[in-house]
Amino acid sequence: MELPNSNFKIREIFSTHTNNFLSEEVKFTQVSENELKKISFLKNPKDSVAVCVLPENNKFEEKNFQLVLDGIQDPGNLGTIIRLADWFGIEQIICSEDTVDFYNPKVIQATMGSFTRVNIAYCNLTEYLSSTQNSNVGTDMEGENIYHFEKPQKINLILGNEGNGIRSETENLLHKKISIPRFGKSQSTESLNVSMAAGIILGQLFKI
Amino acid sequence: MELPNSNFKIREIFSTHTNNFLSEEVKFTQVSENELKKISFLKNPKDSVAVCVLPENNKFEEKNFQLVLDGIQDPGNLGTIIRLADWFGIEQIICSEDTVDFYNPKVIQATMGSFTRVNIAYCNLTEYLSSTQNSNVGTDMEGENIYHFEKPQKINLILGNEGNGIRSETENLLHKKISIPRFGKSQSTESLNVSMAAGIILGQLFKI
Repeated sequence: MELPNSNFKIREIFSTHTNNFLSEEVKFTQVSENELKKISFLKNPKDSVAVCVLPENNKFEEKNFQLVLDGIQDPGNLGTIIRLADWFGIEQIICSEDTVDFYNPKVIQATMGSFTRVNIAYCNLTEYLSSTQNSNVGTDMEGENIYHFEKPQKINLILGNEGNGIRSETENLLHKKISIPRFGKSQSTESLNVSMAAGIILGQLFKI
Repeated sequence: MELPNSNFKIREIFSTHTNNFLSEEVKFTQVSENELKKISFLKNPKDSVAVCVLPENNKFEEKNFQLVLDGIQDPGNLGTIIRLADWFGIEQIICSEDTVDFYNPKVIQATMGSFTRVNIAYCNLTEYLSSTQNSNVGTDMEGENIYHFEKPQKINLILGNEGNGIRSETENLLHKKISIPRFGKSQSTESLNVSMAAGIILGQLFKI
């Protein structure tokens, strides 16, 4: 229901419902629940699958608040981060070329529709971060306490890979490092999941 | 590796490794990777599965900061919330009787070991919240802005079911309602996932 109001052009719809929401330009096929399970890759799909034209959008204009993802691998994490960006009104996410594909079905599903409202671009991060007008701020275990951090006016908030964090080429381009102080008695090397850390940091940077 | 330092008594270990980390009281069986896949229910298991004695812990002592879960259904959400509690040093989570079972394998796995450091108790929530000494604070779309909310000294932070939120019997027992202000242009009825909302709220309540 969010696609018709987005920049995505719909080509075809497969739905367990009857055709009650789209124009004549879109091919519509009614399918069984079982067929929908197969084409959606989900055990419990909602009611419809849409086939859309992939926009060619590797050109992008820098925004004042961007997320930058340095090698995020898990589709659920990328989807959750897109949903978070949408919640906080962040319009654009810049991804390293080895970040998981935005069009992975698990990513799209985890965004809960937010993928229609956030622009995602892939690029060579080292080149981009070398030439950006924004302040490059990365998360790091040894960074400045986020509760005392003063948000720059123009910021790239950089999040690293689930296992390895921000890679050293990217780290060399950071202007600031921030971290969430640890409270618990956890001795585990496990830290917060990257999307949860992003949520807590954004919650702090966007406080009103 | 965290179980021997916890209150969980280990009975038996199945591992793809050789027995290099436990006492003679624990039965140890080396298994193949394929066998581990089957008994762990995971496609990509780590190296071991432990069988532990379930502690009988439905009695609990009230703590000054508790999470209270009112019908959380998704095992991944419960696991993520336990991991969050551990991160923030919250020692106890009180669950309604219809909250997903803490011992569900997906819950245990999602906690990443944090289940060994957080006490989880199930009870009749209406009875408990009627007699608690803590302030009952619930999340609600129309609640007080969390960024202006002054944390009570003793608090039950109550999180509701994924689809239906806090049930009305519980809502009647709330002393305060809080909410995360919405920033984005999202018109969707989808809000933040309950565990992400919990993370952002805890990030704010525990700022230092």
